Amino acid sequence: MSDPIDTPAAAPATATTTGPAPDLRARAAGLDATDGLAGLRARFALPEGVVYLDGNSLGALPAGVPDALADVARRQWGELLIRSWDESAWWTAPERIGDRLAPLVGAAPGQVVVGDSTSVNLFKALVGAARLAGPGRTRLLVDAATFPTDGYIAESAARMTGLTVTPVDPSHAAAAFDADTAVVLLNHVDYRTGRLHDLPALTRAARAAGAVTVWDLCHSAGALPVDLDAHGVDLAVGCTYKYLNGGPGAPAYLYIAERHQQDFDSPLPGWNGHAEPFAMTPGFVPAEGARRGRVGTPDILSMLALEAALDAWAGVGIADVRAKSLALTDFFLECVAAYVPAGRVESVTPAAHAERGSQVSLRTDDARAVMAELISRGVVGDFRAPDVLRFGFTPLYVGFADAERAARTLGHIFG
Amino acid sequence: MSDPIDTPAAAPATATTTGPAPDLRARAAGLDATDGLAGLRARFALPEGVVYLDGNSLGALPAGVPDALADVARRQWGELLIRSWDESAWWTAPERIGDRLAPLVGAAPGQVVVGDSTSVNLFKALVGAARLAGPGRTRLLVDAATFPTDGYIAESAARMTGLTVTPVDPSHAAAAFDADTAVVLLNHVDYRTGRLHDLPALTRAARAAGAVTVWDLCHSAGALPVDLDAHGVDLAVGCTYKYLNGGPGAPAYLYIAERHQQDFDSPLPGWNGHAEPFAMTPGFVPAEGARRGRVGTPDILSMLALEAALDAWAGVGIADVRAKSLALTDFFLECVAAYVPAGRVESVTPAAHAERGSQVSLRTDDARAVMAELISRGVVGDFRAPDVLRFGFTPLYVGFADAERAARTLGHIFG
Repeated sequence: MSDPIDTPAAAPATATTTGPAPDLRARAAGLDATDGLAGLRARFALPEGVVYLDGNSLGALPAGVPDALADVARRQWGELLIRSWDESAWWTAPERIGDRLAPLVGAAPGQVVVGDSTSVNLFKALVGAARLAGPGRTRLLVDAATFPTDGYIAESAARMTGLTVTPVDPSHAAAAFDADTAVVLLNHVDYRTGRLHDLPALTRAARAAGAVTVWDLCHSAGALPVDLDAHGVDLAVGCTYKYLNGGPGAPAYLYIAERHQQDFDSPLPGWNGHAEPFAMTPGFVPAEGARRGRVGTPDILSMLALEAALDAWAGVGIADVRAKSLALTDFFLECVAAYVPAGRVESVTPAAHAERGSQVSLRTDDARAVMAELISRGVVGDFRAPDVLRFGFTPLYVGFADAERAARTLGHIFG
Repeated sequence: MSDPIDTPAAAPATATTTGPAPDLRARAAGLDATDGLAGLRARFALPEGVVYLDGNSLGALPAGVPDALADVARRQWGELLIRSWDESAWWTAPERIGDRLAPLVGAAPGQVVVGDSTSVNLFKALVGAARLAGPGRTRLLVDAATFPTDGYIAESAARMTGLTVTPVDPSHAAAAFDADTAVVLLNHVDYRTGRLHDLPALTRAARAAGAVTVWDLCHSAGALPVDLDAHGVDLAVGCTYKYLNGGPGAPAYLYIAERHQQDFDSPLPGWNGHAEPFAMTPGFVPAEGARRGRVGTPDILSMLALEAALDAWAGVGIADVRAKSLALTDFFLECVAAYVPAGRVESVTPAAHAERGSQVSLRTDDARAVMAELISRGVVGDFRAPDVLRFGFTPLYVGFADAERAARTLGHIFG
């Protein structure tokens, strides 16, 4: 889910130019020089002098987006006007863009539809999941450490479908899956700690118990392989403004596994999800495929900005992204250990690769003030109450020198 | 609700330059010359040579929007990045823009919040209304001729709150309001016929029966006075891409009358509607005021385009807009009567001003082909199955010469 920073804002500053461990700077330069993805940074418009480690909250601006937006506004809207619903293919954008991002989450075409916010899609997914689960099961299991909106929406979905929400520790959730479990809602990566949960095993266990799985991919899609189809996930949602760089509040997406599409019964049956929207018939007949997850008229400006943003992924393999992500977070942790006096920060992000997303969260006293100071020195991460510094690593535009500078700046603050 | 045209698209053509009734052309010129709102057209970027009478489906592009969008993308997103949630006041946009459009629907500040699609807001409003109505009432009355999505969403809201949907003829709906009526959902203006319903009387009657009113303002807001507060409306929704010119799929809005805000219980309690969204607490505590109607992260690009679009309303009074709207539709009907051979079209829009919105709908055989031909001649309206030509009159950028040319072109097609 979204998480605008709430630390004091500050202007970018120039890089700190001295440090105690110049070998790490040389190492960083060497790693950047051999990084096969380093050239992708040119696909983004990033401010000078800033190390941007908050792409896990708001991804950077892909370079082609402003011109694409100008065309949508001036030509498609201003000149073609209503004709653009056909001629500029506005009407089919939710499915088309869904199919474009599907490979990034390991989904075959026809299963992802873009539109609405993550919260709204979560409501569709959870109510849809409860209906797929059918009567006789009463529990909706929710990651106890979830981003709050997931919990709030889960409570509402449960209230409106007769289920009861049960919080679970996602690391040990499988033990809670039983014959009374209707739906399981889990985050692929925890927004606060950056912990990566075992989607394949948890999905397998949930399905073995007869439950329907709903995964929140906000903090994993675009940063690491998700492989929804391969692991048999039932439903999933995610935002597009973090590692997918779709822009502030860009439309979210809903994945409905093909095997469930025929029975997916949305609580938000808007006319865009109707089999024949222009027939304007009084009874709702859901469209075939993921399109039945659509609701109202798509917000075209935000949606086509997202479409242009996805151009930044041309030729990029998610496995390479993952490899660089792990190398970046490994290196950052190494630099932190070298630069920051012992005992001043503690990583709450797991050391094991299999349990790490694409961010590093460091616990420290006075985290809010520390992050404000980092930002004032040109290193932008964010703060999560009460005591967490978050640093997101987006492999498409973050390099090893960025990681080294961030850790070195942090060291100076504690120095 | 949205209604992209589904007639064949065609390029604009030059105006027809001959006609059987030159006095109407002179009359049009005179009316335009004395039109106090005529200068507002310069606030829009309209294609040359086109008479655009489809602003009731997609409003034209306000001239300032492209530059505003470029600033949002390049500077606010690209340079300020995450800081823009505070520094560019992204976070408060839903309430701020709600307050900006509130005067256009007769709402005091603090009651309108922008975001999500009309369908999603309708779901919030209907479920919220059912909860406000409380137990003991079982019926949700819905305009039988409503734009389909309203009916679909009403069915879902009823199913999830234990109500039963009863279709009503909005012209005679008051007779159906009884002690069993929980919620009444009506359109202010019918999307197909352009009929204006009696919001003050219907609201009064519904409230007298103890029901909660939900009005769909999609086809009235921005075209005529709505006066939500003055008439005691409980809840309302509307889109912003028709007469408010917010752009394709621009965010919709939700009005929650102040007296209901404390008890409004949204089925979509996303973190943006939380009293303290950044506290990230596990239980949902709704924010004070209309902000509790927010759900997920607002789609900033679409939302700030809408904000810029509202600049077109500076200094414009809705009463003047209404006066011009009626003059335009009167004049168009007069021109149609003069130009179109008798019996070829029949207006399904009421002649009485008190029952007319800001569009004229003409029934004719072969309406789809007729509209395609009109469009090929540079007159853009739209078609509604099976036999309706729709012509929307947006007083901010449509003039009397446009109305005359549209009717004259229609006459030529039948001539």
